[in-house]
Amino acid sequence: MIQTTTTVRVRYSETDQMGYVYYGNYPQYFEVGRVELFRSVGLSYREIEDFGVMLPVSDLNIKYLKPAKYDDELFITTSVKKLPDGVRIFFEYEIKNQDGILLTTGAATLYFMDKVSGKVIRCPERILAIMRPYFE
Amino acid sequence: MIQTTTTVRVRYSETDQMGYVYYGNYPQYFEVGRVELFRSVGLSYREIEDFGVMLPVSDLNIKYLKPAKYDDELFITTSVKKLPDGVRIFFEYEIKNQDGILLTTGAATLYFMDKVSGKVIRCPERILAIMRPYFE
Amino acid sequence: MIQTTTTVRVRYSETDQMGYVYYGNYPQYFEVGRVELFRSVGLSYREIEDFGVMLPVSDLNIKYLKPAKYDDELFITTSVKKLPDGVRIFFEYEIKNQDGILLTTGAATLYFMDKVSGKVIRCPERILAIMRPYFE
Amino acid sequence: MIQTTTTVRVRYSETDQMGYVYYGNYPQYFEVGRVELFRSVGLSYREIEDFGVMLPVSDLNIKYLKPAKYDDELFITTSVKKLPDGVRIFFEYEIKNQDGILLTTGAATLYFMDKVSGKVIRCPERILAIMRPYFE
Repeated sequence: MIQTTTTVRVRYSETDQMGYVYYGNYPQYFEVGRVELFRSVGLSYREIEDFGVMLPVSDLNIKYLKPAKYDDELFITTSVKKLPDGVRIFFEYEIKNQDGILLTTGAATLYFMDKVSGKVIRCPERILAIMRPYFE
Repeated sequence: MIQTTTTVRVRYSETDQMGYVYYGNYPQYFEVGRVELFRSVGLSYREIEDFGVMLPVSDLNIKYLKPAKYDDELFITTSVKKLPDGVRIFFEYEIKNQDGILLTTGAATLYFMDKVSGKVIRCPERILAIMRPYFE
Repeated sequence: MIQTTTTVRVRYSETDQMGYVYYGNYPQYFEVGRVELFRSVGLSYREIEDFGVMLPVSDLNIKYLKPAKYDDELFITTSVKKLPDGVRIFFEYEIKNQDGILLTTGAATLYFMDKVSGKVIRCPERILAIMRPYFE
Repeated sequence: MIQTTTTVRVRYSETDQMGYVYYGNYPQYFEVGRVELFRSVGLSYREIEDFGVMLPVSDLNIKYLKPAKYDDELFITTSVKKLPDGVRIFFEYEIKNQDGILLTTGAATLYFMDKVSGKVIRCPERILAIMRPYFE
């Protein structure tokens, strides 16, 4: 599988008046993890778009176990456990804080889309070629 | 059950460079729907907090069927189909655009928390009393 | 001049742990005002982009007089006091709450840009033609 | 003076359909710079709030020179050029991208506020004591 851990520092803007990170900010954190997972295997998400492929999200699940607080250092662990065998790619997430406490888990399903036609496409071979070694 | 439909106009800030509403903005839309559902039965979420109860989200699911675009008028239909019988309350969501096309569905589980102690509590009777008539 | 007042309801996501609207959310409110000002004269900002013109912001000033709070109903008054006579257009803003208290004032300078070439351009005649009557 | 440079990676959520960073996201970047400036002298903004002081923004200016793009690495240089001699503290900002190109400049004025009373206060001595050496 492919797995990376990346860190983000909670911004003041990401808190709400409950004093916690607003629940709607976690998809952003997940996306940061996703991008860094791609980067870790040498894939820049910017390049993926530049060669005409977009990756919209079709399905998102988040479990909020414990709240993150302002200035917490969050460790986002992102995993792709299965090589894409069609039009979809699955990501799993775990977010822990600086004390190693598990705060959030989640999963997202994305699909490959042709930027010009807007049509759903299979995972391009150039991406598969880069990911395949991690699943052998 | 309790069900309300409220509208939001997609803001430029809510789009991303794909030209669609960023997937992480839908939790905000759901929350707008939630707040307006409470308002429709005479409960102000601000008042709920003022009398010492907070409603954190513990679980969120979103299905992205079709993208929302800049300046779309979104119709957020929010439903509570079951009177809270413990510490949790369940919300279901449907978002359609101005053409009546279903864009997004979702569900969120929230729990009642005492603002001072941070302890999970059962749904306060003053809230149940207001909601009960809708389930008889 | 052209002047419109539009309202937004403060979202929970827009607050921070100070219990106020986060200072970085006001540019979004200004932009909502800007878009509604254009709409009020029959210009859809979406159409402006569709015919190949973008309006990036070059300069922004905000004075925070009093904080906005969660669930406040904000009245955003947006004014264009001078017909664009070149590449720029100037907007002025005032935000009041439901009690008529002035919370924020601001100003933004935008310029016209050709979407394809990315070049700065003069205000297109089709936009001037629509705005001109308001300045005669 | 006190000056620090901190970096942020532009998130996909921070772009808009123009393909640039949304103009309303720069106040967030400035705030990240502010927090890291305090941290660089041993002041945690979280601690400042914990000992009862809040720092709301009263005035913000931003000049947008060139757009930041998705995945850019931004270098935020934050400066405090004058020891607070009253209730206010002034911050100046410069944001450059990975190519050293100046994208944005700005300034923010913040004031010290007592968290409990909500009253404006002079800069607390414990903060002055930490900052003073940098201005001698």
